[in-house]
Amino acid sequence: MAETPVAVVILAAGQGSRMQSDLPKVLHRLGGVPMVGHALAAARSLEPIEIIVVAGHGADAVENAVHKLEPEARIVLQSEQLGTGHAVRQALPLLEGFEGKVIVLYGDTPFIGEETLAALASHTADLVVLGFEAEEPGRYGRLVVSEAGLERIVEYKDADEAIRLIALCNSGVMALDVSLLRRLIVRLTNDNAAGEYYLTDLVELARAEDYRCNVVTCDEEETLGINTRAELAAAEAAFQARARAGALDNGVTLSDPGTVWFSLDTAIGRDAVIGQNVVFGPGVTVESGAEILPFCHLEGCHISSGATVGPFARLRPGAELGGEVHVGNFVEIKNAVLDEGVKVGHLTYLGDAHVGEHTNIGAGTITCNYDGVMKHRTEIGANAFIGSDTMLVAPVRVGAGAMTGSGSVITQDVEDGALAIGRARQVSKPGLAIRLMQALRMKKEQR
Amino acid sequence: MAETPVAVVILAAGQGSRMQSDLPKVLHRLGGVPMVGHALAAARSLEPIEIIVVAGHGADAVENAVHKLEPEARIVLQSEQLGTGHAVRQALPLLEGFEGKVIVLYGDTPFIGEETLAALASHTADLVVLGFEAEEPGRYGRLVVSEAGLERIVEYKDADEAIRLIALCNSGVMALDVSLLRRLIVRLTNDNAAGEYYLTDLVELARAEDYRCNVVTCDEEETLGINTRAELAAAEAAFQARARAGALDNGVTLSDPGTVWFSLDTAIGRDAVIGQNVVFGPGVTVESGAEILPFCHLEGCHISSGATVGPFARLRPGAELGGEVHVGNFVEIKNAVLDEGVKVGHLTYLGDAHVGEHTNIGAGTITCNYDGVMKHRTEIGANAFIGSDTMLVAPVRVGAGAMTGSGSVITQDVEDGALAIGRARQVSKPGLAIRLMQALRMKKEQR
Amino acid sequence: MAETPVAVVILAAGQGSRMQSDLPKVLHRLGGVPMVGHALAAARSLEPIEIIVVAGHGADAVENAVHKLEPEARIVLQSEQLGTGHAVRQALPLLEGFEGKVIVLYGDTPFIGEETLAALASHTADLVVLGFEAEEPGRYGRLVVSEAGLERIVEYKDADEAIRLIALCNSGVMALDVSLLRRLIVRLTNDNAAGEYYLTDLVELARAEDYRCNVVTCDEEETLGINTRAELAAAEAAFQARARAGALDNGVTLSDPGTVWFSLDTAIGRDAVIGQNVVFGPGVTVESGAEILPFCHLEGCHISSGATVGPFARLRPGAELGGEVHVGNFVEIKNAVLDEGVKVGHLTYLGDAHVGEHTNIGAGTITCNYDGVMKHRTEIGANAFIGSDTMLVAPVRVGAGAMTGSGSVITQDVEDGALAIGRARQVSKPGLAIRLMQALRMKKEQR
Repeated sequence: MAETPVAVVILAAGQGSRMQSDLPKVLHRLGGVPMVGHALAAARSLEPIEIIVVAGHGADAVENAVHKLEPEARIVLQSEQLGTGHAVRQALPLLEGFEGKVIVLYGDTPFIGEETLAALASHTADLVVLGFEAEEPGRYGRLVVSEAGLERIVEYKDADEAIRLIALCNSGVMALDVSLLRRLIVRLTNDNAAGEYYLTDLVELARAEDYRCNVVTCDEEETLGINTRAELAAAEAAFQARARAGALDNGVTLSDPGTVWFSLDTAIGRDAVIGQNVVFGPGVTVESGAEILPFCHLEGCHISSGATVGPFARLRPGAELGGEVHVGNFVEIKNAVLDEGVKVGHLTYLGDAHVGEHTNIGAGTITCNYDGVMKHRTEIGANAFIGSDTMLVAPVRVGAGAMTGSGSVITQDVEDGALAIGRARQVSKPGLAIRLMQALRMKKEQR
Repeated sequence: MAETPVAVVILAAGQGSRMQSDLPKVLHRLGGVPMVGHALAAARSLEPIEIIVVAGHGADAVENAVHKLEPEARIVLQSEQLGTGHAVRQALPLLEGFEGKVIVLYGDTPFIGEETLAALASHTADLVVLGFEAEEPGRYGRLVVSEAGLERIVEYKDADEAIRLIALCNSGVMALDVSLLRRLIVRLTNDNAAGEYYLTDLVELARAEDYRCNVVTCDEEETLGINTRAELAAAEAAFQARARAGALDNGVTLSDPGTVWFSLDTAIGRDAVIGQNVVFGPGVTVESGAEILPFCHLEGCHISSGATVGPFARLRPGAELGGEVHVGNFVEIKNAVLDEGVKVGHLTYLGDAHVGEHTNIGAGTITCNYDGVMKHRTEIGANAFIGSDTMLVAPVRVGAGAMTGSGSVITQDVEDGALAIGRARQVSKPGLAIRLMQALRMKKEQR
Repeated sequence: MAETPVAVVILAAGQGSRMQSDLPKVLHRLGGVPMVGHALAAARSLEPIEIIVVAGHGADAVENAVHKLEPEARIVLQSEQLGTGHAVRQALPLLEGFEGKVIVLYGDTPFIGEETLAALASHTADLVVLGFEAEEPGRYGRLVVSEAGLERIVEYKDADEAIRLIALCNSGVMALDVSLLRRLIVRLTNDNAAGEYYLTDLVELARAEDYRCNVVTCDEEETLGINTRAELAAAEAAFQARARAGALDNGVTLSDPGTVWFSLDTAIGRDAVIGQNVVFGPGVTVESGAEILPFCHLEGCHISSGATVGPFARLRPGAELGGEVHVGNFVEIKNAVLDEGVKVGHLTYLGDAHVGEHTNIGAGTITCNYDGVMKHRTEIGANAFIGSDTMLVAPVRVGAGAMTGSGSVITQDVEDGALAIGRARQVSKPGLAIRLMQALRMKKEQR
């Protein structure tokens, strides 16, 4: 069977007023990325022809975030929130000419698994709803199923006692043929208490014309939606628990799994060692056998095999650590490549720099990369020795095998093998310390 | 009905020998403040005419702590610990002339809610005891209640089987008319196994004279007392859980609520974002929309809207960050006002300083505020540019729009718009680095 | 009764393939030390004549680790893993001439208590097996006991229904007379499904010759073995929970016990205060009344009474802090002795140094202890005042009562009471900052 082309529509227009926030709900972070990023990642797993995000509240902010996460996604505006059916309808103009299956996801339902989506995408019915056996069905809509498949979806408030006994509930996620969607969506009405156009009403319309409707089921936790900050915190905890267990299964050493925070895309190799209290922001890869000591904050960086980082280190986007690199305490690396064997032990800021292999960076070294208006680069060659408290005033280049004297301000390039030094001569004034302290103490008493 | 004036007596004389500590029990910290601070805060909510703390063990230390927390509270010494009745009696001389209600609280019972206290204060009976339905009544004293109100309090060891079936227990907290208290307290005896004067015996004395006694009830957890370090740890966990839930309800974003520690007076605005591992010491206010990144330690400071702090930042008392201020990693701010838009990105200590708006502080900057005897101030104007590794030897002033060269030691004032620089010329010695390293390696081999 | 001499054999040859790791299983860390360190510590409590560790997978690494933990332990190689009986047999040549009791422990079973081991060592039977009442006996071997003592050990797969009802299970730990061991071990066969020589088969051989066999029981949790990273994480959590509870019982203040990590040998005095997020690596002692603020990483160091450390401090091996020493934020101390009353407040690295009493170390001070080839020492006398951003280029000595000017690079010794300064004169160029910024902005626009 040839694979049917797929388009994904992600509904992300709601404000989420129960979040008590001015930030659109789908932009609240989960696993280090805006919540909508999880739906985008799930969508990507289907290799869809099109991903369309329906934005409404805070649409500009949502558009920016979505484009950072998935540049090829397209945004459509739902300027009034008139229901899920109405939201999907806004996406249809962007699907002109598309033939295949449309899958509707939700920006605030981050945990739908890739296998579940694959099952939805490959199902042969004309319309497929994602359902789940709820432990406490409560106020969920119920899925009424016969031998023929899905008969209808009954909202809780319209359900009689018999229907309420059904545990199979509606997740809201739906997959259906785009031509079917086009034809039926215009027939949805808002003739209900909320005055909204409901996507779920498509089932009844489809059944009325004898289309085959069916249900794919998943675990209830995949359908977890987020409406409050407490639910977001619980979702974050669930995400982290899974990520931690996954890392352990893959042979990562976590000194205390509960104090390591992963992002959606964190990748860590076998036998890497991660200490207590490490935060992985988005975009971090750690190779096998690297060691991250406690109290580190990492984002957008790569750490090669045999490297050690921390404690108390911060790697910012663009930090690339080669093999056996050592980054120690109170060190910040940003947009800098450190070749194999570089040592940066203490109290250092390296930004917009390249450091050649086996170079030693003394404590207190700073790349002065900002002149108040622009950022500039620092280049340091291999096997160099940067003395403690060296200021590297960029743009500047220190050659291979060169040294800088500690306390030097390096404003001009240093050639290979040269020693550069900028330092006042030490002068010693015998007895002056004693006299100075006496004078200061006297002054204090006179106050 | 006119409101009755209220005086609060807080019993805080016990040593707490089960704490295994030389510190008086009520000075162990809970929610960032000495435990007695919770009773003081509860007392304050009643707007009492007088707050009296009865101190005993470590009375000087208790007095100091109480006066820091509540300067208007008065301390009375109970030099021997002869029971709760004896303790309250020590407070009476300070209440001479007072007419109204006395409420007795405990320094080691931190969770009595403000609503509960209001109910006690406004109750019309002559004597009101705070009771609670205990899940496991165990060895608590039982409250015997009839239609007429509270009849008596029976200690567990004096209770028969019928009494022990009562689940309504005595918290020890009591509210009563001061004239009643004055008259009955002298009649308390220590004719019991412990040889102590019990406050609870007042109920029997009052009932014998047909005074109206009654019970106000609260949740059991409000009456939680602290006797061991394990109980203190549990109380801290309970306090933090409530504070975290409260912050989420108020629309604060907490990346991982379980790793944010609040103090009793922490105040955070809606849509502020708090990363993992942030410790709020006492006296912190964070405005709406500010962001605290992971690994921050904050105390006695104010963070304005749009400011970002951390990761790895420490704000100490007197740090005031204006709007859009950025304080980055490995930065310490103490007793310093940073006006709007100031950037302090890395590895800096600012103490006893004022920085004008939009000034940029380079990495490695230090205010040398201590000369070995006294502390001095640093003033930096607006739109200045402090080069990396600038030492600002206070007292010193850098003018608006001024710059300092990186690596400079600034000992004299810099006028507005001037560039100040104190730096040795860079000298380069070709090939010397190579020869130096060779010599060092040879020397090492010869050892 | 005279005490029987004891030898301990620790089996540590397995690879632990379920750990998903190239590191030998017994070298994975638990409580800050390689897992085998727990068995070694337990063994030491018996004051044995001999400790023999049987290594196999990664034997060199295991040998190195064992010798660091317990220099007197001896290693024997089991080059093929042919079962526990075979493993113990490899140890016998090292026990030639020994008369007494052999106790067999496991490198991956870290929680056997000292009291349990003492009971095993002092038992009078010829062969004693450590058993436990399992809550879920599952697939453990069962101990069949009669009035005469232990009759036999039945592996789960050989057990009938009646045997499987027995809850008393085999931990694998065994104590037996060395002469008995020598005589019977050669009779073990590998005539079983796994083709291995099982130590447990000794029981049957001993009983066949009417030796007295018996069982000592312990809590099931003492026998917890570690086979996966998830089990390791659970074991670490159990270890930490015990250590935290123990610290509280001993009168240590832990602001949030769940965020303090102990090592096997951490020792903390009563009324020491430990803030949130403190990691104790191996070899730390903290005296009574010292205070560790949040976010500290400590290893191989000693902190005296009245000292305060942190937040954000790192103490590395050889850091010794005298009484009332203050080590503040973003400070690293390595192999350095700080005498009474020394203050090191901020952003400092002290390595390979000695600092005399009451000396003040300014912010940004660095001991430049590494010249690219060798490490050198810094000596600072008492009552000295090291100005901010002082570079101390070791080897160097600063005398008692001496001062260094801030921003100085100290390359030569400073005599007692002298002021040493190496600093360029501050020059101010009026208006230049304004013109420079204008020029930079113009340049940027031209880009």
